Amino acid sequence: MASEQTPLIPNDADDRKQPVRSRGIREVGLFIWALLATAGVIVLAVYLQHENQISHGHDSPAPKRNLVFMVSDGMGPASLSLTRSFRQHIEGLPVGDTLTLDKHFWGTSRTRSSSSLVTDSAAGATAFACGKKSYNGAISVLPNYQPCGTVMEAAKKAGYMTGLVATTLVTDATPATFASHVLLRQMEDQIAMQEVGEGVLGRSVDLILGGGRCSFLPNSTEGSCRGDDVDVTKIAQEKHGWSYTDNRAGFDAFKHGEKVDLPALGLFAATDIPFELDRRNMSDTYPSLSEMATTALRALEKATAKSDKGFFIMIEASRIDHAGHINDPAAQVHEVLEYDKAFRAVLEFIKNTDTETVLVATSDHETGGLATAIQEPGHLPVYNWYPQALAQSSASCEYLSARLSKHIASDPSALTSKDKLKSWIDAELVKSGLGIKDATDAELDLVVENPEAATQLLAAMISLRAHIGWSTHGHTAVDVNIYSSGGHGTDKLRGNVENTDVGAFLREYLDVDVEAVTKELRDKMTTADLGAPMDMDNYPLSVITDTK
Amino acid sequence: MASEQTPLIPNDADDRKQPVRSRGIREVGLFIWALLATAGVIVLAVYLQHENQISHGHDSPAPKRNLVFMVSDGMGPASLSLTRSFRQHIEGLPVGDTLTLDKHFWGTSRTRSSSSLVTDSAAGATAFACGKKSYNGAISVLPNYQPCGTVMEAAKKAGYMTGLVATTLVTDATPATFASHVLLRQMEDQIAMQEVGEGVLGRSVDLILGGGRCSFLPNSTEGSCRGDDVDVTKIAQEKHGWSYTDNRAGFDAFKHGEKVDLPALGLFAATDIPFELDRRNMSDTYPSLSEMATTALRALEKATAKSDKGFFIMIEASRIDHAGHINDPAAQVHEVLEYDKAFRAVLEFIKNTDTETVLVATSDHETGGLATAIQEPGHLPVYNWYPQALAQSSASCEYLSARLSKHIASDPSALTSKDKLKSWIDAELVKSGLGIKDATDAELDLVVENPEAATQLLAAMISLRAHIGWSTHGHTAVDVNIYSSGGHGTDKLRGNVENTDVGAFLREYLDVDVEAVTKELRDKMTTADLGAPMDMDNYPLSVITDTK
Repeated sequence: MASEQTPLIPNDADDRKQPVRSRGIREVGLFIWALLATAGVIVLAVYLQHENQISHGHDSPAPKRNLVFMVSDGMGPASLSLTRSFRQHIEGLPVGDTLTLDKHFWGTSRTRSSSSLVTDSAAGATAFACGKKSYNGAISVLPNYQPCGTVMEAAKKAGYMTGLVATTLVTDATPATFASHVLLRQMEDQIAMQEVGEGVLGRSVDLILGGGRCSFLPNSTEGSCRGDDVDVTKIAQEKHGWSYTDNRAGFDAFKHGEKVDLPALGLFAATDIPFELDRRNMSDTYPSLSEMATTALRALEKATAKSDKGFFIMIEASRIDHAGHINDPAAQVHEVLEYDKAFRAVLEFIKNTDTETVLVATSDHETGGLATAIQEPGHLPVYNWYPQALAQSSASCEYLSARLSKHIASDPSALTSKDKLKSWIDAELVKSGLGIKDATDAELDLVVENPEAATQLLAAMISLRAHIGWSTHGHTAVDVNIYSSGGHGTDKLRGNVENTDVGAFLREYLDVDVEAVTKELRDKMTTADLGAPMDMDNYPLSVITDTK
Repeated sequence: MASEQTPLIPNDADDRKQPVRSRGIREVGLFIWALLATAGVIVLAVYLQHENQISHGHDSPAPKRNLVFMVSDGMGPASLSLTRSFRQHIEGLPVGDTLTLDKHFWGTSRTRSSSSLVTDSAAGATAFACGKKSYNGAISVLPNYQPCGTVMEAAKKAGYMTGLVATTLVTDATPATFASHVLLRQMEDQIAMQEVGEGVLGRSVDLILGGGRCSFLPNSTEGSCRGDDVDVTKIAQEKHGWSYTDNRAGFDAFKHGEKVDLPALGLFAATDIPFELDRRNMSDTYPSLSEMATTALRALEKATAKSDKGFFIMIEASRIDHAGHINDPAAQVHEVLEYDKAFRAVLEFIKNTDTETVLVATSDHETGGLATAIQEPGHLPVYNWYPQALAQSSASCEYLSARLSKHIASDPSALTSKDKLKSWIDAELVKSGLGIKDATDAELDLVVENPEAATQLLAAMISLRAHIGWSTHGHTAVDVNIYSSGGHGTDKLRGNVENTDVGAFLREYLDVDVEAVTKELRDKMTTADLGAPMDMDNYPLSVITDTK
């Protein structure tokens, strides 16, 4: 009916017949309709763009960003069920109570290197740092023995602040790949020099916290592991402006990151920081992974507060891998729990910071061929494993073995009074340390006869009681887990990806030019800088493959 | 300027001053604007709704749906890197070439049962079928020994067609949990009866394809493993209307699913269908997993073509688990490759069907503590494993061991002429079967002296050459992978979930009432129906825990 009075298509011929007032009302109506519809288009378009930004990222220039990259060296999938069930056991938690890591599980990464189906940490971390596959032993050098630019070096050039945190030597493979280039991971003297700024690019790191002081001290001083008389701490301070501390008091003076004079080098152990299972009793000497992580985050946040660029930090739980190499499941669960705590601390940081920050965490490889169940020789398989056997352990096998070495060193006659040594081992190491009350004579005799292998022998005793299996003291090829705080393009790391895809994400998220760094390195580095002269083809294979 | 002539808000007072023609043009302009803007609103709103449907699912009544649930029994994360690298090796593929499964990796599942940190297949599949944790050995019965309704029973009641496919006995734990309720998995005589419709709910399955004929034949006939003289195939056909076939010709008569007379029972092996590594040479006797899967999908699609309900099918790659129990890595890679092929076939089905169909695939647990690297006793660890050692194997250790048994049975004197037996084993089983040319005397002597353990001994020989490690002939607690075709609410299975969450997804996706089935079961089932009278507390623990 309304259409008879006001046809949908206005007709000029009819125009004169209609009263002026009704025509005005019609115009107002049309206008309001158009206005509302236009408003609708705008609202929907804005909403849609917002949705797409959330799900697909956005193309506009990168805002200020921080990137936290965590590496759980040697942590394979079995380490998670091991640690989750251990925690449920000791804290009396229900079945569904999971680790913080579990709640942020994101995908898995394939790990093979260019030289082997089973990678080492050097090739594994080169895949993260350079985004390229290389041979086992390579520190950000490719299979053609040419250096490749790293995401940390490119980030530094782009104006980001950068940091490295590790619980092992900061010259060890994982941290080394981000800020140095050598043909083989064993060249730690050169790695230390490049890390403080002696490489062809100058200084690429603003903050280094961890162990490995020995590679920074001249071999004329105690506790050095350098081949030369170079004092890297001195070069770092005098030539490159680093502040330097080598002790817990110096760490405490950082005031949780509020008072860090960057660039800052903190080396809190001559070699490794002790396993968390032991460190917790020596916390007045060594900071924990989570303490170092939170301090570093705050320091870098403060240092970039007025910058339009944020920071990039690599935080490594280095010694999950070591517990795997030793095959010590008690040491491992405490390493993973501390890693979970550090991961939680990073999430907390992200919650409280105003700057867009992404956390991505993964492993380079699995270590040990860990299995949460074993079949005892001569027995049928039992479908269970026993976390209580790990809960009874109060010290790592590495620590207990060091006690044995000290005991023997303090009284060399111990080796000849074998019954007495056996009683001491049973009382001090096995009963008191591992919490094992039923050690057999055969087990104790093995330790007495092979004190140099005590670490592995004690680890086998506790693994047997817990029904934890291991296939090797080396690495395996199983895919490793990826974790993330999510959002901001991290969907690229969902599902199953190659370890080089993790490296590609790091550089893409930071929007930095790694290729330009590669070019600069190739222009400026000599073969001598990479650790040559050395005939790599004739380099003993065992050095390349039989490494951590 | 234009605004002076035609103010944005039409004014009645000005109306009379404006020429009629310009007013008409203005109206047409307003009208077109309104129309275009409205069209914009509609387009954006439809797009937005579509986007939201994809990302969040929708609340409207469930459309017709199919659900394909695949179970890779005993496949842990290490099986994937094992099989992926094996395939890259034998097909000469580049590093980045992955399995179809890898491309659909979705999340991981925690697997512990109510009675142990290490589940068996019964408790594992009960978590899928009922969505609840139970004790090792339970077939859709809870820790209080009460039955729990399953998603397949509820789906049948809701009008879906249903199917079960397995490469082991269809009365084995995984298929059993979907369509039967007994206190212990060993009660396969009762499981067979309930599966064909003799349970209190009547028939819940429309199609069963797999092995395990022996539990359906009376013990008066050859090839039976029943404890009684009941002919379940006869009851199935005469009382419940099943069509029945027990051979490859019968399978071929299904014409890829075009000619299946439902309900249909196809039992193609007395016990297990041979490992794929052996079956491929006996394809005129046994159908493959992917053949059974595609046939079942087409049969159920056809049978539901005119229904407003689709189908629910469980397809199990049962024998990945068996290869793990034996510790035979060559048998395992071929089982996983066939599973990958079946997975690909389901994706192809989804691509071509008009009905909304979701594929979710996971494992119940890991078997064997598989590790892709070992440390040989007395050697340093080597960072590699060798797929070529698996590629040289032309038969499973199970098959070769059966050949040894036949050889001895045909000539019992073989056991006394040990040198002759050793030569035969080396030539026929080790060199010709496993492709191992360098077996040591010690290895061969072990087989000669322990022919009953030949399966495991041969498996150890090939594992050693391939550098594949195993910790047990039983199961382990590592989280297992989840795969999916994606969309349609499968985001609930992203990340790390409990195995019961997988069960919850199945019932939610199908929108079926499992609780009602539980109530009906509890009203109707007697303890005798569940396999009682039996004192479960005194039931030997070994029966509960030392099972597949």
